[in-house]
Amino acid sequence: MALSTELTELLGVRHPIVLAPMGGAAGGALAAAVSRAGGLGLVGGGYGDREWLARELTIVAEGTDRPWGVGFLSWAIDAGAVERALEFRPAAVMLSFGDPGPFVERIRSAGALVMVQVTDLEEAARAVDLGADVIVAQGTESGGHGARHGRSTLPFVPVVADLAAPVPVLAAGGIADGRGVAAALALGAAGAMIGTRFQATAEALVDPSVGRAVVEGRAQDTERNGVLDLARGASWPTEKYTARTLGHPYLDRWRGREAELARDPQARQDYRDDVARGAIPPAPVWAGEAVDLITDLPSAADLVTTLAAQAEQALARAGRHRPGGS
Amino acid sequence: MALSTELTELLGVRHPIVLAPMGGAAGGALAAAVSRAGGLGLVGGGYGDREWLARELTIVAEGTDRPWGVGFLSWAIDAGAVERALEFRPAAVMLSFGDPGPFVERIRSAGALVMVQVTDLEEAARAVDLGADVIVAQGTESGGHGARHGRSTLPFVPVVADLAAPVPVLAAGGIADGRGVAAALALGAAGAMIGTRFQATAEALVDPSVGRAVVEGRAQDTERNGVLDLARGASWPTEKYTARTLGHPYLDRWRGREAELARDPQARQDYRDDVARGAIPPAPVWAGEAVDLITDLPSAADLVTTLAAQAEQALARAGRHRPGGS
Repeated sequence: MALSTELTELLGVRHPIVLAPMGGAAGGALAAAVSRAGGLGLVGGGYGDREWLARELTIVAEGTDRPWGVGFLSWAIDAGAVERALEFRPAAVMLSFGDPGPFVERIRSAGALVMVQVTDLEEAARAVDLGADVIVAQGTESGGHGARHGRSTLPFVPVVADLAAPVPVLAAGGIADGRGVAAALALGAAGAMIGTRFQATAEALVDPSVGRAVVEGRAQDTERNGVLDLARGASWPTEKYTARTLGHPYLDRWRGREAELARDPQARQDYRDDVARGAIPPAPVWAGEAVDLITDLPSAADLVTTLAAQAEQALARAGRHRPGGS
Repeated sequence: MALSTELTELLGVRHPIVLAPMGGAAGGALAAAVSRAGGLGLVGGGYGDREWLARELTIVAEGTDRPWGVGFLSWAIDAGAVERALEFRPAAVMLSFGDPGPFVERIRSAGALVMVQVTDLEEAARAVDLGADVIVAQGTESGGHGARHGRSTLPFVPVVADLAAPVPVLAAGGIADGRGVAAALALGAAGAMIGTRFQATAEALVDPSVGRAVVEGRAQDTERNGVLDLARGASWPTEKYTARTLGHPYLDRWRGREAELARDPQARQDYRDDVARGAIPPAPVWAGEAVDLITDLPSAADLVTTLAAQAEQALARAGRHRPGGS
């Protein structure tokens, strides 16, 4: 048995479960494992680094004959990154954060599906206008980057689904178990995009300390903030996008003083020095509010199978009727 | 047909749909209408005003022979308010925001169910320890008051459900249509608590302008803030609790300057003057992020019936399996 949605039909995948293209962490091995298990694995192409892309897309293309895809940051990439990725024949290319417009035609003409992630209704309307094949509605409880002034997944997804219909919508943000997948479908989504949960799998392209931090992390310690991007000297447009991470010394030091931090080159030097001497981790641990639900480090294949089975159970339980049927 | 959950079994109600006890707005007529239609109507007892309680509890008690209840603000009430309410024989009393401890035994000994609303896991654990019969997990997308640093409903509900089991948990915040009710059940909740949506019904105890504002309001214009409580001179503990409202001139004027506002008696006088001369509405319009889904002003009975039918449809659609069943 398997749940059937517009997404599983459109892509010919078994489960309505999509690996979020987490930059760096969603490498070729993880994406391939998700796709082999019946989900849709998306490689996290991020800023479009050519060397990284060539390596990871080779791994995913050789690792599965099922559909897979790749995601990019619209504000960060150039057309060349998309071109390079399309040579590997992904089934889908996802564009997040920024204007997807410049890349849509090229992706479509290569025969790949265009997936566009949105964080508000204006972006959703724009994605529809551009002819997106799949729209990903991301809530503010998601781990990693998202809108500074974001929307919560539960009320956001049905509004985007209404706006986009008949274009299928995926729910992203706050989903880490089968109940969340089931809720996504109940809200009218055609599937669930899952990030943080996949960081705590055997195949995730992260330092083992990250998987452990995700398992041990608590949602109440996560925070959406621009501080760490500013401290890292990342080029993210922090006025619009922030990232949800686990707690971090630089959050405590700079919370509420982003403008000051942005003007302080010494703070960025301090951050680099603290990384170099091991006082702080090499990168923030990006984690969403669903981190509370993550308590183990399975293989990605086992995780996909478990999520799908739990989702079916959750929907069957939720749909129970009163004995007698009245 | 009707969906069956731990809540419908426990209370003997037809639908797993609960009217949020919105202070002032959820009066006796609205609560009675919800209960007559098969949901659980909760009167918004708020601060425990004796005259208001006597009037509205008389209306609900005379208006339905089905189970109904009443909600209070734990930080604001004294035991006398609960005593007064219990004389009307509610099936349930809900306690929100603050320590429910002082009131639990009295409610239980009167034979009413104890419902405790929680906004974080610490509060949820405390509610379990106190022996709450029903726990309401409130997400930050909810309208009106909630935690300043709240959790989003979708990832919060399953964690509370795991912590509280076998105590039934309701999902609150961001639910305004049957898809949201279905999602709540999929997440493991025994029902959905709904507020903002019921403000836009014929029976809501609000000025007609409020219902219209909710119908016209957009989620992107809602904001969780302590400014309006401070400007109104409300006694809410704003360091811990804020309220989500539609846009308001005083939000634009004071956003980000709550400490300054708290020290400025002239600002409170200005607010009163602006209300008196009709420059601003008599009260903020409390509204959650699900306001986008609210487009009409039905009767409460029609709304309950519609929500229940939509929820069944949403779960049936979400639970579709691939033809052939493989």
